[in-house]
Amino acid sequence: MRGPVERIDLSAAELPTRWYNVIPDLPCPPEQYLDPVTREPATEDFMQALTPRALIGQEFSLERWVGIPAPVLDAYRLWRPTPLYRALALERELDTPAEIYFKFEGGSPTGSHKLNSALAQAYLARQEGIRCLVTDTGAGQWGCALALAGALMGVEVVVYMVRSSYFQKPYRRHLMELYGATVLPSPGEDTEFGRQLLAEDPDHPGSEGTAVSESIERVRRDEGARFSMGAFANHVLLHQTVFGLEARQQLEQIGARPDYLVASVGCGSNLGGLALPWVPDKLAGEEIEIVAAEPAACATLTKGEWREDSADSSGVGPLVRTYTLGHEFVPPPIHAGGLRYHGAAPLIGLLRHEGLIEARCYEQSTVFEAGRTFTRLHGMLPAPETAHAIRAVIEIANECSARHEKKTIVFSYSGHGLLDLGAYGEFIGSELEVSADEALRATLPAANA
Amino acid sequence: MRGPVERIDLSAAELPTRWYNVIPDLPCPPEQYLDPVTREPATEDFMQALTPRALIGQEFSLERWVGIPAPVLDAYRLWRPTPLYRALALERELDTPAEIYFKFEGGSPTGSHKLNSALAQAYLARQEGIRCLVTDTGAGQWGCALALAGALMGVEVVVYMVRSSYFQKPYRRHLMELYGATVLPSPGEDTEFGRQLLAEDPDHPGSEGTAVSESIERVRRDEGARFSMGAFANHVLLHQTVFGLEARQQLEQIGARPDYLVASVGCGSNLGGLALPWVPDKLAGEEIEIVAAEPAACATLTKGEWREDSADSSGVGPLVRTYTLGHEFVPPPIHAGGLRYHGAAPLIGLLRHEGLIEARCYEQSTVFEAGRTFTRLHGMLPAPETAHAIRAVIEIANECSARHEKKTIVFSYSGHGLLDLGAYGEFIGSELEVSADEALRATLPAANA
Repeated sequence: MRGPVERIDLSAAELPTRWYNVIPDLPCPPEQYLDPVTREPATEDFMQALTPRALIGQEFSLERWVGIPAPVLDAYRLWRPTPLYRALALERELDTPAEIYFKFEGGSPTGSHKLNSALAQAYLARQEGIRCLVTDTGAGQWGCALALAGALMGVEVVVYMVRSSYFQKPYRRHLMELYGATVLPSPGEDTEFGRQLLAEDPDHPGSEGTAVSESIERVRRDEGARFSMGAFANHVLLHQTVFGLEARQQLEQIGARPDYLVASVGCGSNLGGLALPWVPDKLAGEEIEIVAAEPAACATLTKGEWREDSADSSGVGPLVRTYTLGHEFVPPPIHAGGLRYHGAAPLIGLLRHEGLIEARCYEQSTVFEAGRTFTRLHGMLPAPETAHAIRAVIEIANECSARHEKKTIVFSYSGHGLLDLGAYGEFIGSELEVSADEALRATLPAANA
Repeated sequence: MRGPVERIDLSAAELPTRWYNVIPDLPCPPEQYLDPVTREPATEDFMQALTPRALIGQEFSLERWVGIPAPVLDAYRLWRPTPLYRALALERELDTPAEIYFKFEGGSPTGSHKLNSALAQAYLARQEGIRCLVTDTGAGQWGCALALAGALMGVEVVVYMVRSSYFQKPYRRHLMELYGATVLPSPGEDTEFGRQLLAEDPDHPGSEGTAVSESIERVRRDEGARFSMGAFANHVLLHQTVFGLEARQQLEQIGARPDYLVASVGCGSNLGGLALPWVPDKLAGEEIEIVAAEPAACATLTKGEWREDSADSSGVGPLVRTYTLGHEFVPPPIHAGGLRYHGAAPLIGLLRHEGLIEARCYEQSTVFEAGRTFTRLHGMLPAPETAHAIRAVIEIANECSARHEKKTIVFSYSGHGLLDLGAYGEFIGSELEVSADEALRATLPAANA
C-alpha cells in the first residue's frame, strides 16, 4: 500500500513570475463599478480616493499576463511554490476510481491563500507613497495577511475587526498585533459611524458591514490611507492566480489534467485563484467542471440573483452587477466566517452567469464531518472554509464511483483550521446548535469588563 | 535589497532514508536504565512491559545508520523534506556579519518536529502487534503527534493530558480527538492513582508527573498497550536526526558549514535531532558550538546536576544518569510547556558532561520579545519553545557583530506558535505576571460545571 499522499513539488526556479488576467479571454468584460449615489460609472476620483492607482490599473486591464514585481516574488518565496498533493488516503477511503489532488495553500505564514494578494497590494501601495492601508476583517484571515504584508513591505495597517470576533476569537487579533497592525473592534469609538452604533447599543456585535463602513470613513478622513480588499475585486483574483498557475504546472509535470476544479466560495478569490487559468481551455471546448462549494446558509451562487448590488453590506462603496443575496442579507453565524458574504466577486458572478461555473451548497455539520475525515486520513486540519471544498470533492468522487469514471479532481486547500479548533471542538461535542449570538451574549460583558 | 529569506529546498528524492545513531561514535556509551526499585540495570522484562521491542532494540544499538521503514518514509512525505531558510531579514535587523539559517520543522501537520518520532514509534508498535500506545502530554504537542501517527499507522492512542491544560487549552485536545485519540485529563477517574488524587483535591491541576504515572498504570493493566515517549529516550533522538541530516545536506548544497547549532532544550529531542549528525565532526576537532537554549525557570543543562535520577517526575519509571534539577522539581508555569522538564535526555546529558554542548538560559519576557521580532520580520510565528532558540541566536549574532566575525548560525525552528497565541496575547498585554495557577482557579470550576 502506498502512503497517505503523493507530493508534486516545484523548484524555486519554477515559481510563476506573472499573474494571469482572464479578462481579455472572456466573451465579454466584467461591468464597471457604479457610484452608489449617482448610479453612474464611478469616476476616477471616486476610485482613487479609495484604492491605490496601480490596483485600479489592474482592475480592468486587458493585458493577459501581468508581471509579478520582484519584491513580491521575494516575499512569495517565504512559502511558495506550494506543494500539490495527491490525496491517496482519501481515494482509498472513498474507494473511488477518481484521482483527487489538492493544492496546499495552508502553509503560508498566515495560514491561507489570502497572503498572495496582500503582499501585492502592500507592495504596490508602498510604491506610490501610500502610508497606510485600511481594511475590514471578520474572523481575521484577511486581516492577518494584510498585517504581515504591511510589516514586510513597510506600510502601516489598520484593521477594523468585527466586534464579536475581536473579543471572542482573539487569536488572529493577537497575530495581527504581533505583525504590528492596529486592530480596532467594529463598531468602535474610532469613527463617527462606530460611535453612533455604540450609542444605540453598547454591546453591538458588529458585522462585515460595520467594519467596511468604518474603514471607508477612516480612509476618507486620512489622505495617506487607502482601502484594501481581501476578495471581490478583479485585481485580487488576478493576484490569486499564482496558485492556480502553479497547480497547472504541477499537473502537467505528471501528465495529468483536471476534470473538476473545486474550491469553496465566499466571494471568489479562492475559486478564481485556482480555476481562472483553465477558463480559456474551457471556453475552447475542453470538458472541465469548475465547482463552487458554498455553505447552505449563504449560498450566493446557488441561490442568489444576477443584478446590480452594493459590494459592501453598508452600501457606501461602489455598486456592481454580480450574483447576490442582497447587501442587507445577514448570514447566520456559521463557523466558516470567510464564506459569510452576500455577493460573489463580479468575475465569478460573470462566469456563473455565462454557465462556466457550477455551484453546490452544503450544511455545516456535513462540512465538519468531511473536515474530520480528511484530518484523520492526511493529518492536516482544514479551515471550515476549505472543508466545504472537501465536502464537495467527496460528493463528486462518490458520483465518479457510481458511474465508474476515472476522473481527475483538483481542489484548493485554501487554509488550515488550527485557529478554528474551537469550532471543531463544538462539532465534536455536537454543540453547534449553540449559536454564536448566545456565545456572544455570554462573552461580551466579561471581555468588556 | 533581497527578500526576507533565501530558501534551500531538497527534492523528494533527497529525503534521508536512514536515521543517524550517534552512540557508536561517542567516546563512551550512554548508561543503562536502572530499575527504580532494585537500582540494578532494568531487566528485559521490565523494559518490554513498557516499551515496544523494536524501540528497545534501537535504544542501545551500535549500528551507525538505521534504515527508515518505507511506510514511515511515505508518511514523512506529508511534509518532508522541510525547507532550510536563510533569515536575511533578521540578519539585516541585527546588522550582523553572521549568516543565520533555520531548519523549518513548523510545517508538519501537527506543527512541530515531534511527528518525526511519533510516526516511527506507531509504525514499529503496529508491526509487532501492539494494539494501543499510551502517552502523557502537557500542552499537547507530543500528544497531537502520536495521535496522528496512530491514525495513520492503525494503532489506538490514549493520551493522559495534564488536567489544567485539558480544560484551559482545549485546542490541541480537540486536534487529538479529531485524529481519533482518547484524551483523558490527568489526574482523572480512569486510574487508581488518578482517583486517589482527585479524592484528595477535586480541582487537582495535574502535572507531567501525574500523567506519566497514570500512563504507566494503564499500560501495566492492559497487555496490548505500551508506553510511548516523546523525548528523553535514545530512540527518540535517533528518529529526530532525520531533520538534522536534511539540514546538513542543504548546507552542503550551498557550500556552507555551521559554526553554531542552536536549539531549545526541554529534554533534548529537538537539539539532538539538529546537532547529533555533526557530533563526529566536532569530536574530530572541527570548531562547532552546539548551543542549548533553555528557560531560566527550568535550566536543566545550565543549572542541573549530573547524577542518577528518575526519568519521570513520579519515580515509577526507570532511573538513569543525566543532568537533572531533581525529579521532584516542579517548574513554574511558563508558556513554553515543552521546556518544563526536570531532566535532560541521557544522550544530551552525556554530551553536556563531555563538554560538547554549551547551555544558555533566558527569561520568558526576552524570549517572547525575540519571538515577536522574528514574526514581524519573517511572518512565521514561532512556538514559545522555538523562540528560546531565536533568543539565543540573536545573542550569538550580536556577539559576532561585536567581534566582527562572519560565522554561520543554524537553528531549529522546531514548531509554530499558532496555538500559543493566547500566551503571545498576554505578552502583548504585559499580563504575563498573571500566573497559570490563577488562571486555572478562574477556569476550572466553570469548565467542570
